[in-house]
Amino acid sequence: MNASAHTATARPSRSAFVAACAEVLGAAHVLTDPHDTAPFLTDWRGRYTGEACAVLLPANTEQVAAVVRLAREYRVATVPQGGNTGLAGGATPDASGLQAVVSLKRLNRIRGVDPHNNTITVEAGVVLAEIQARAAAEQRLFALSLAAEGSCTIGGNLSTNAGGTGVLRYGNTRELCLGLEVVTPHGEIWDGLRALRKDNTGYDLRDLYIGAEGTLGIITAAVMKLHPAPVAQVTALAGLASPHAALDFLAMAQRHAGALLTGFELMSDFSLRLVGRHFGQMRYPFAEPHAQTVLLELSDSESEAHARTLFERLMEEAIEAGIVEDAVVAENLAQSRAFWDLREHIPLAQAEEGLNIKQDISVPISSIGRFIEETDALIAQAAPGARMVTFGHLGDGNLHYNVQAPEGVDPQAFLAGYQKRINALVYEQVHAHRGSISAEHGLGQLKVNEAMRYKSPVEVRLMQTIKAALDPENLMNPGKVVPARD
Amino acid sequence: MNASAHTATARPSRSAFVAACAEVLGAAHVLTDPHDTAPFLTDWRGRYTGEACAVLLPANTEQVAAVVRLAREYRVATVPQGGNTGLAGGATPDASGLQAVVSLKRLNRIRGVDPHNNTITVEAGVVLAEIQARAAAEQRLFALSLAAEGSCTIGGNLSTNAGGTGVLRYGNTRELCLGLEVVTPHGEIWDGLRALRKDNTGYDLRDLYIGAEGTLGIITAAVMKLHPAPVAQVTALAGLASPHAALDFLAMAQRHAGALLTGFELMSDFSLRLVGRHFGQMRYPFAEPHAQTVLLELSDSESEAHARTLFERLMEEAIEAGIVEDAVVAENLAQSRAFWDLREHIPLAQAEEGLNIKQDISVPISSIGRFIEETDALIAQAAPGARMVTFGHLGDGNLHYNVQAPEGVDPQAFLAGYQKRINALVYEQVHAHRGSISAEHGLGQLKVNEAMRYKSPVEVRLMQTIKAALDPENLMNPGKVVPARD
Repeated sequence: MNASAHTATARPSRSAFVAACAEVLGAAHVLTDPHDTAPFLTDWRGRYTGEACAVLLPANTEQVAAVVRLAREYRVATVPQGGNTGLAGGATPDASGLQAVVSLKRLNRIRGVDPHNNTITVEAGVVLAEIQARAAAEQRLFALSLAAEGSCTIGGNLSTNAGGTGVLRYGNTRELCLGLEVVTPHGEIWDGLRALRKDNTGYDLRDLYIGAEGTLGIITAAVMKLHPAPVAQVTALAGLASPHAALDFLAMAQRHAGALLTGFELMSDFSLRLVGRHFGQMRYPFAEPHAQTVLLELSDSESEAHARTLFERLMEEAIEAGIVEDAVVAENLAQSRAFWDLREHIPLAQAEEGLNIKQDISVPISSIGRFIEETDALIAQAAPGARMVTFGHLGDGNLHYNVQAPEGVDPQAFLAGYQKRINALVYEQVHAHRGSISAEHGLGQLKVNEAMRYKSPVEVRLMQTIKAALDPENLMNPGKVVPARD
Repeated sequence: MNASAHTATARPSRSAFVAACAEVLGAAHVLTDPHDTAPFLTDWRGRYTGEACAVLLPANTEQVAAVVRLAREYRVATVPQGGNTGLAGGATPDASGLQAVVSLKRLNRIRGVDPHNNTITVEAGVVLAEIQARAAAEQRLFALSLAAEGSCTIGGNLSTNAGGTGVLRYGNTRELCLGLEVVTPHGEIWDGLRALRKDNTGYDLRDLYIGAEGTLGIITAAVMKLHPAPVAQVTALAGLASPHAALDFLAMAQRHAGALLTGFELMSDFSLRLVGRHFGQMRYPFAEPHAQTVLLELSDSESEAHARTLFERLMEEAIEAGIVEDAVVAENLAQSRAFWDLREHIPLAQAEEGLNIKQDISVPISSIGRFIEETDALIAQAAPGARMVTFGHLGDGNLHYNVQAPEGVDPQAFLAGYQKRINALVYEQVHAHRGSISAEHGLGQLKVNEAMRYKSPVEVRLMQTIKAALDPENLMNPGKVVPARD
């Protein structure tokens, strides 16, 4: 959509659109005052800011459908938004002021829980932590867990196919979803709220909408999978000499623990040093530093003692085999929490240290060691002194392979000078290892062009064909995920 | 596509098409002699027979692409085929003689195994059992397992999103696939052979092709997930009074065993009586019959003793709670095998007993008890004396809810008189319980119209829009999965 081309003739109809929305939603749920709309127009990290002709707050699926039909009638593009915690600008409108933000916040009902079926049916605007809490109340686990869980919403999780810390065992958001309700670009409601483990009666529309960031329709509700709640979760830390050792350790841990292994997170020495520098109260439990530290989590349906015994056996074998240098198993819940805190404070410590270059990449797990070695060397050449903050979900092949300015160098200046070069270098390396430059955060507006550059023309055309077929007028979150067809 | 409309003008060009294919594939790999083509034109159960202008046997992906381009040029519809073991006629051409069967049999290479990444890359024509064997050689498990595994191919498994006995823990074929290589309707090759656990860089084309039965393109290769091989698999049988009790037992087993529970199969008393009647050597291990028998399987990464202890604890609690009437844990591999044999001989015993009405339905697991009760009663009314052969993957909500003629009634006559009525009745019941009329077998040509009748017009239109956009000339397995747009 060429925004400027529309401006002259379209402006007058936009106020008519806003008025028509107020008719449907009630004036209180159509925000136009800049003071009211501001929180919806900038993402939570403050990296993206847009303009909108209105922020619309429908109360239910029918109202979402009505708004999409009006948007179609008035040719207004819509940008759906959940908790506004995205990392790629997918929920921020463009700068034209011609788009409308559709906030799903008021679609916040848990429609039902079916413990025998291990499912929960939720509206798009339900906050992730609320789903976790409701599942826990039924002695069930909702396995999606990520840093923003206190404010992100399930609609956004689905639209970006969010990852997080439970993927090793339970999969991404995609694998946790059984059915969807979606408002199509034509303003119709697709009721695909199936609660079935098996259904082979046609094309997999569900998975097409998941990860599409609102570009093919607006997800309004979902049936999500629950799991039996484990009776014990035990955490351990292991110190290792290299990412290669961490890979050997992963294979050994999977052999020992099978599906009980629910977490396997890598933290480089420098990542933990940063945590120590900015959060002095956090204790690294080993006497000596290790080049790499792995956080493991076991989720056990038998007992804490069983999980602990399993850990002890694993660590013994790993130390004997020379794979692990030192290990410690959390003695209680508080210590488990403290181990996770170390991991979770890495991004916070990075922020304290100053602006940095963030990556969210994945490669085949078997390539991680080589990827880190090669890419570290290339970055050391390209940006001498740059400090690598390497951590992440090793069990999923997913690293936050971040780059901090050299000690004493102004971060702003470093980014201005190096961000483009380092991104290009990392993306080339990811591509060479057949990896992904956006593993769990989506493309949004941040990485569309870069991502398409690494896809084959065949794949880009397939995506564009689907987009054009389902949203022929390009009114659903245009410009995100897929570039418009020429 | 209206076949007859093409006939007059198109016939001559068909021989040109066949000649052009012979040029590309070599004459030996283009079958036209009825003696040679016959095995490809009838499905293995002999339910569907079609005609074809040729059976094409490309040797690799490039040859598949070349064949699809030629088919496009000559406007010949293609019908991809793997092991020809499908249950819904999806791989059988229509009766026009104008379609070409593309057999993927010669694409039978395992391209690679990556044990550290827990992945295997296979061509579409590799037989399922070969993948299992290759995984086992690497101390890995390939978790897809179903009756036809000795002859079905992974391309067919993917195209029908096959289920089987491992779904409870490992998911359907869909959940076991990380990446695909596909020949598009335009004869281009999409290389989506990613071996990543996380990749959020665009629309989920992979899952669109999975389950599409060749109507959107031809799958030529795939990256499939492996799991660490369990060190022990132990099986048990439990006798129960009702499907309701079986559901309570499922919840209890999942609480006890978590992800170690890899099998939970229901077998009604009459199902096992049929096995006893036709396979006298199979022993039912309980002294008294039980209304329902459940087969459980634990896959343990610790030891056989651990699995056995877990089973014993579970059975004790279930018997004390009055949920289970009697239980037996297999004492060795041979007995485990014998328990599975009971389960696997049910369809064989049915065949011995005579033609019957087969269903492959799923409902939310919590509804299974009510579904069986209600539907049994309705069938008893509609077809007095009809014998219900109810068995299947209870843990997935998936039943083979089959109906056998009353004792002494000619099966042929029974089917002629009742099949339509009973199907309609079962489908209505499935629909009322928000279930699926094709849980794990796909739609093929068998159930397209029925399935569409139970889908909303919105969903049918979405499917048709995608089909028309990706295959505008409707040349990819036309008539399967989705009805052509008017």
